[in-house]
Amino acid sequence: MRTRNKPWAKEKMMEYPQYFVHDPELKKGKWHEVFGNDHPIHIEVGTGKGRFVTGMAQENPTINYIGIELSESVIVMALDRLIDADLPNVKLLNINAADLANFFEKGDVSRVYLNFSDPWPKNRHEKRRLTFSMFLDLYKGLLMDEGEIHFKTDNQGLFEYSLQSFSAYGLLLTYVSLDLHKSDFEGNIMTEYEEKFSRKGQRIYRCEVRYPANS
Amino acid sequence: MRTRNKPWAKEKMMEYPQYFVHDPELKKGKWHEVFGNDHPIHIEVGTGKGRFVTGMAQENPTINYIGIELSESVIVMALDRLIDADLPNVKLLNINAADLANFFEKGDVSRVYLNFSDPWPKNRHEKRRLTFSMFLDLYKGLLMDEGEIHFKTDNQGLFEYSLQSFSAYGLLLTYVSLDLHKSDFEGNIMTEYEEKFSRKGQRIYRCEVRYPANS
Ligand SMILES: C[S@@+](CC[C@H](N)C(=O)[O-])C[C@H]1O[C@@H](n2cnc3c(N)ncnc32)[C@H](O)[C@@H]1O
Ligand SMILES: C[S@@+](CC[C@H](N)C(=O)[O-])C[C@H]1O[C@@H](n2cnc3c(N)ncnc32)[C@H](O)[C@@H]1O
Repeated sequence: MRTRNKPWAKEKMMEYPQYFVHDPELKKGKWHEVFGNDHPIHIEVGTGKGRFVTGMAQENPTINYIGIELSESVIVMALDRLIDADLPNVKLLNINAADLANFFEKGDVSRVYLNFSDPWPKNRHEKRRLTFSMFLDLYKGLLMDEGEIHFKTDNQGLFEYSLQSFSAYGLLLTYVSLDLHKSDFEGNIMTEYEEKFSRKGQRIYRCEVRYPANS
Repeated sequence: MRTRNKPWAKEKMMEYPQYFVHDPELKKGKWHEVFGNDHPIHIEVGTGKGRFVTGMAQENPTINYIGIELSESVIVMALDRLIDADLPNVKLLNINAADLANFFEKGDVSRVYLNFSDPWPKNRHEKRRLTFSMFLDLYKGLLMDEGEIHFKTDNQGLFEYSLQSFSAYGLLLTYVSLDLHKSDFEGNIMTEYEEKFSRKGQRIYRCEVRYPANS
């Protein structure tokens, strides 16, 4: 996501500790304390401008959401949205998904959302795709038993790759739609990219996979 | 496939024992004798008018093909095609896929092709779909270890269902294309239905799955 560099971003984030988690390494294994309740925690990796986590949090007040985003200049836009929405059940985290294991431990999370992840179409960039086996290891390391990944994208190549990657990893495919907006799936919350691509007439692909019990 | 009833079909089939297997129950475990060599055997279930098996057999002379088709009036058209092509490595079999276990034993076959299988879109007809778990059991009962199913269809609903059915059964997804004719897949042989639907601009979905070793 191309955005202007924002030197004031970090400062702004410090001003909103109720939405922005500053010391996530101290929260490992204690995320329920951050939210002050025992509701299940769902994370979105690569949350962008935060439309999805905010919308989901509004619709599902008994689920806690954490939006994880690498880019400072993007995550401040998610912060703006969250300030407007004023929701108790969303937090934002400015970290690299590759470092998830520093901030979460097994069982902290019950679902991982991946929405319109960067496709990295070149074979030599396979390792950067958020559905590469190394990332599936990371998600396993923080998910509860039988935790799930819910994934959607407009990118056909990334979707094909991901279905194979999930299968090779031993994940169970419990839902798949090859044209989400023409399916009978209910309660879809659109992301920024989803709105943009579906307006252009692109199909949206979506699937859900589950880690096996005791994995 | 709607075709006129053909009372002479059976008679015609009897005339061509070199293409048409009349006593398949006697061939169980002995299919290599039928072909007179030890080449791998691939079957197509629901072969229709035989364009696919004939084309594949032409391209791959060291593989033996068996086209399996329930309808007499359809399979005689495949027979006509085969008489024209005059190939030693294709046989036709007029049986119901539900009865496969009567005619094949474990290891007889190394690959199952399913092309444009009837979609049976109603939930209550799930058991008739050739990718329903009961059929996956039947294919397992005749495939060698690590045998494969190669499946293509224009039907989005059947493809979505089948991906989930394969996953639930523990099959490994080793290839998937969500738009075969725009992919870089080489050596595709079109079936009758494929030609018809792709001419209308429909996408073709294709996947390959593999049974686990010692399954
Ligand atoms: C294509 S955008 C999609 C944004 C949003 N999910 C949507 O659907 O509108 C991908 C986002 O993922 C973020 N991202 C990419 N790799 C990441 C990583 N390793 N860790 C965290 N965020 C990442 C990017 O900065 C970008 O904001
Ligand atoms: C939609 S047609 C597709 C034909 C061909 N594969 C193609 O792609 O052009 C499906 C075919 O499968 C056959 N078929 C359906 N159920 C079958 C079964 N249980 N056993 C054998 N053949 C079956 C039908 O008679 C029909 O010819």
